[in-house]
Amino acid sequence: MIIVFKPKTKDEDVQKIVKQVEDEGLTTHIVVGTETTICGIIGDVTKVDPKQLEVSPVVDHVMRVSEPYKLANRAFHPEDSIIDVSGVKVGGDHLALIAGPCSVESKEQVIAIAREAKAAGANMLRGGAFKPRTSPYAFQGMGTAGLDILVAAKKETGLPIVSELMSADYIDEFNEKVDLVQIGARNMQNFDLLKEVGKRCTKPILLKRGLSATYEEWIMSAEYIMASGNPNVILCERGIRTFESYTRNTLDLQAIPVIKRLTHLPIIIDPSHAGGKWWLVEPMAKAAVAAGCDGLMIEVHNDPEHALCDGPQSLKPQKYTELLRQIKGIGEIVGKKI
Amino acid sequence: MIIVFKPKTKDEDVQKIVKQVEDEGLTTHIVVGTETTICGIIGDVTKVDPKQLEVSPVVDHVMRVSEPYKLANRAFHPEDSIIDVSGVKVGGDHLALIAGPCSVESKEQVIAIAREAKAAGANMLRGGAFKPRTSPYAFQGMGTAGLDILVAAKKETGLPIVSELMSADYIDEFNEKVDLVQIGARNMQNFDLLKEVGKRCTKPILLKRGLSATYEEWIMSAEYIMASGNPNVILCERGIRTFESYTRNTLDLQAIPVIKRLTHLPIIIDPSHAGGKWWLVEPMAKAAVAAGCDGLMIEVHNDPEHALCDGPQSLKPQKYTELLRQIKGIGEIVGKKI
Amino acid sequence: MIIVFKPKTKDEDVQKIVKQVEDEGLTTHIVVGTETTICGIIGDVTKVDPKQLEVSPVVDHVMRVSEPYKLANRAFHPEDSIIDVSGVKVGGDHLALIAGPCSVESKEQVIAIAREAKAAGANMLRGGAFKPRTSPYAFQGMGTAGLDILVAAKKETGLPIVSELMSADYIDEFNEKVDLVQIGARNMQNFDLLKEVGKRCTKPILLKRGLSATYEEWIMSAEYIMASGNPNVILCERGIRTFESYTRNTLDLQAIPVIKRLTHLPIIIDPSHAGGKWWLVEPMAKAAVAAGCDGLMIEVHNDPEHALCDGPQSLKPQKYTELLRQIKGIGEIVGKKI
Amino acid sequence: MIIVFKPKTKDEDVQKIVKQVEDEGLTTHIVVGTETTICGIIGDVTKVDPKQLEVSPVVDHVMRVSEPYKLANRAFHPEDSIIDVSGVKVGGDHLALIAGPCSVESKEQVIAIAREAKAAGANMLRGGAFKPRTSPYAFQGMGTAGLDILVAAKKETGLPIVSELMSADYIDEFNEKVDLVQIGARNMQNFDLLKEVGKRCTKPILLKRGLSATYEEWIMSAEYIMASGNPNVILCERGIRTFESYTRNTLDLQAIPVIKRLTHLPIIIDPSHAGGKWWLVEPMAKAAVAAGCDGLMIEVHNDPEHALCDGPQSLKPQKYTELLRQIKGIGEIVGKKI
Repeated sequence: MIIVFKPKTKDEDVQKIVKQVEDEGLTTHIVVGTETTICGIIGDVTKVDPKQLEVSPVVDHVMRVSEPYKLANRAFHPEDSIIDVSGVKVGGDHLALIAGPCSVESKEQVIAIAREAKAAGANMLRGGAFKPRTSPYAFQGMGTAGLDILVAAKKETGLPIVSELMSADYIDEFNEKVDLVQIGARNMQNFDLLKEVGKRCTKPILLKRGLSATYEEWIMSAEYIMASGNPNVILCERGIRTFESYTRNTLDLQAIPVIKRLTHLPIIIDPSHAGGKWWLVEPMAKAAVAAGCDGLMIEVHNDPEHALCDGPQSLKPQKYTELLRQIKGIGEIVGKKI
Repeated sequence: MIIVFKPKTKDEDVQKIVKQVEDEGLTTHIVVGTETTICGIIGDVTKVDPKQLEVSPVVDHVMRVSEPYKLANRAFHPEDSIIDVSGVKVGGDHLALIAGPCSVESKEQVIAIAREAKAAGANMLRGGAFKPRTSPYAFQGMGTAGLDILVAAKKETGLPIVSELMSADYIDEFNEKVDLVQIGARNMQNFDLLKEVGKRCTKPILLKRGLSATYEEWIMSAEYIMASGNPNVILCERGIRTFESYTRNTLDLQAIPVIKRLTHLPIIIDPSHAGGKWWLVEPMAKAAVAAGCDGLMIEVHNDPEHALCDGPQSLKPQKYTELLRQIKGIGEIVGKKI
Repeated sequence: MIIVFKPKTKDEDVQKIVKQVEDEGLTTHIVVGTETTICGIIGDVTKVDPKQLEVSPVVDHVMRVSEPYKLANRAFHPEDSIIDVSGVKVGGDHLALIAGPCSVESKEQVIAIAREAKAAGANMLRGGAFKPRTSPYAFQGMGTAGLDILVAAKKETGLPIVSELMSADYIDEFNEKVDLVQIGARNMQNFDLLKEVGKRCTKPILLKRGLSATYEEWIMSAEYIMASGNPNVILCERGIRTFESYTRNTLDLQAIPVIKRLTHLPIIIDPSHAGGKWWLVEPMAKAAVAAGCDGLMIEVHNDPEHALCDGPQSLKPQKYTELLRQIKGIGEIVGKKI
Repeated sequence: MIIVFKPKTKDEDVQKIVKQVEDEGLTTHIVVGTETTICGIIGDVTKVDPKQLEVSPVVDHVMRVSEPYKLANRAFHPEDSIIDVSGVKVGGDHLALIAGPCSVESKEQVIAIAREAKAAGANMLRGGAFKPRTSPYAFQGMGTAGLDILVAAKKETGLPIVSELMSADYIDEFNEKVDLVQIGARNMQNFDLLKEVGKRCTKPILLKRGLSATYEEWIMSAEYIMASGNPNVILCERGIRTFESYTRNTLDLQAIPVIKRLTHLPIIIDPSHAGGKWWLVEPMAKAAVAAGCDGLMIEVHNDPEHALCDGPQSLKPQKYTELLRQIKGIGEIVGKKI
């Protein structure tokens, strides 16, 4: 960590700050420049709050030189983490292909879609039982009954289940019924929920990026889960909020190489929620695989025109089948096996 | 609601959509333009999901003509709502002046600050007992012990207490000890929490705007609380996320006239969290009052250099006292009494 | 175009607006809803300024139902435009592969890079002679001497030249020496320059997207050039500004399918400027081709550590050669020949 | 400037970089930390391009510790600059009150508005003769004829004239007819234009902030003008682009204290363009003055319903008169005389 002092700070004022830092057991190193004096801090800088040092009237600003996350940091864990989701591997050269309806609507619907998705090549089934909706008047999901339908579809097809958890009250039920527990974008910084799934969830976590979360904040939310006891975290980019309003969100595919450089965690892409239009899903899914992602989560619906939620961004099974054919070819080029 | 059809849509395809809408008990009205045909929908359009209609290959897009919120909507409640917080009125020509430390650190600290804030003119006391922190390694607040300290400070000064609730597990305790229950920016779309405070909180709610929430989403979150049974919601703007990184966030003061036009709810401003620097607090507080806000929430700390959290954005009591003197003058000009 | 009136607007006030619109030779159509009255306008709505109608106190808002651009609009020109850049085709199933240094530094440098780029498979040469720089103290480019070096490199390799024009004063020189005239992101709404290149440029234009330009604004800037007389416009996405600061900009690959749906113009991607880091170029270039772009503009430098400008985002020729090998495979899958 | 090396960089690699820096005549200072080695650079760091150092595979990143601007920097010019606009002072305790129509439409119109604005208390007249418009099909301004009308209005009222310059071709004409030359938001990084007005404009420049310009970029554009020879620059905040689409742009009033801290230049606020709605102008104008701005630029039109441009954001003269009454009171409180 580096303290940058204001121009013309007196030596005695610099020394006061130095003493404050050294009292925490850290070592300091002063560099006197032509205009500015700086102070390098050596040791376990997590003991020092940079914001706090900036309160001093002689401190201009404080800069970190290393990342605030440890467990998720690739610097301390150079190999890719490969997460096992009830037998399906995510990370390394494996490609997770998660498909299914936005919301669980009925047993017939889910089983029919699950069969077609599996036939196309999907290796996990998604479906929302608890739905975060902007409006209190919109369909809020089938809840527990929805989870049971997913369990039935798993029994039929063998596909592990991905579903979103919105409240810690349901962790035990998710541990029993779900294989990969999704934390939604809007709960990415619901820190109480992160701690609870870290402590109590026995299944891996799929952590979606918040709509305006920086890479660092997103990784820090993964760090919350890991520091609370659950090391199995998969990150999921699903579009960020920008000034553009023609698309629902802007899909940030640079997240793939960046996350892989900063962390050892797998990253998958959700092109369905990002753009909000079905005709964006196909090109963005291919782009994501070409950029090296570890998986795709895609909404597939056998009757999008009558879906209870997010029909406009769902692919029909036939289109999904065609898409996976091209994905397979691109995966081979970039070193992913399907 | 208006359906815009794609250019050259056949009449029979238009009629199919019309039938689908009329089957929901709504009336339609077709307007054939030179390039485009549109269909106006009359009746209770909450029955129709515009996203769903857009799935149809003949529909270009669907536009709403009215807002999706009812209870918060000024159109159905033209007078300002005035919320009573344990005797302190918020809204109309009343100005809430909430002051206090970011985190509760000790009884001595809180009582000292509360006394000085009250002497300066504050009429409510803020203090964080449960703290949302980006890092799992940062100070997470004193919890229940912190609430008890706030209660002690209230006993000393008579100032009603504002504190943040992060989990529905603590609602009963907050009902007992806190006068105004804050929902933080990062939980603005924690819909389970919104429903619970709507159902079970007996105190008014202070709903902070999410870091990248649109006005409509923010109002919809208020609508969640109101629709679940608690009509007493105060909105709080605390800065939004933009590309600018010199300041922590960008304070959006246009929110004041916009929220007042769209809703009947009071809106207060938190200039401390927005900019993240103490020297921004004073000019932004004055600006907020000049723009017509219903209150200010300001961090005041007697020793910002040693605060456990957010010292850089805290004012010392003396500066706060000076600020309120100017605020009083501006308030008089714009029709707020202090 | 649709006028949405405020709730409870009197019929006579509606009629006043109707008259105003019909006086412009347009036809109107009133739909009276339960809460709101709307008015559809039929005819050449470019005669009506929606912003102007919104001044009326009885008008809530005005919505367009069709796009404001004509010449660039795919609705009126369903086939892909294929632009000929001195013999190299851009658009359709052709892939433009533009490579070269950020700035022209010396004849030796440019010719060496041009040869290696051509050997790798590039089909156009880029190089900045006039450089837009944020700081007045930074290297501003070699100017005319730089253009002459590019011309020499073209003579050597046969590669057509792409270079940025910053002032209309140089149009004649660019017409003579350059094959594809780039308008930079910061000049995307320099409307005087757009008009001049529309009127006077005899070469195709490469129009970069502004850092915070919406799709519609970007297309409208293309429309400026086309409406002024130059129909040969290629669009170039180069990253947009978001809240994320780890990368220089966020590359928006959804732009590819969106631009192709809204317009008939080719779109190429510049992954070098978007991320600002060389290790982002390779995955993003592959992603862009997988998403269906019509070309890539990539910075290639034989000695990035001593480049005068933007070294950190440049690929060495060897890496570029490897990249094009993979690009070729992906191109085949998505229907682009190289 | 500080170089942060990658963890585990070998000493010999550090020394190579050190040598490279010292060859530029600079002094270095190495600090070896527990995880990372850093190198402080002392001397005239404008000789070093931080981006260039980051190309090295052993350099993690490079951080500046001081600002890249000199002439605009308050550190080297602690007192407020006060700019004289043909007798009207801007900066210090002076408040510029610029009013007038968005576009010049006719002599009668401009003179009528100018008289009413002056009677209300305005001390400068604005009016667009050359108009930057998103659409090539929109009214582009009256051009030279418009400037002559403004000159006539100045003759009538004595108010100095503010008008936008879009092309260097008109600098001589603006020097003759206009008192304060506006560079619009879309040209903030039209570097050729900035250099030309720096070199050839004999009048002060009003530099609008780009729609997504950071504070630093904006100040660097002022630095361009100053470094080219014209020290008289006034900055104008006019709203930035965010995700919010209900308002046209988000007015960033934190810009006022930030600009005043970083530079010595005056800053004025344009609340009309920011929000795009007339009912936002009044509260935002009052807020801007309360926050300490040096002036307001407000669109005033005697017949907004028939304005050729931007009617929705214009105030009628009567509203403007009332507004200035309140502004005067707020100005007194914050130390501005009117």
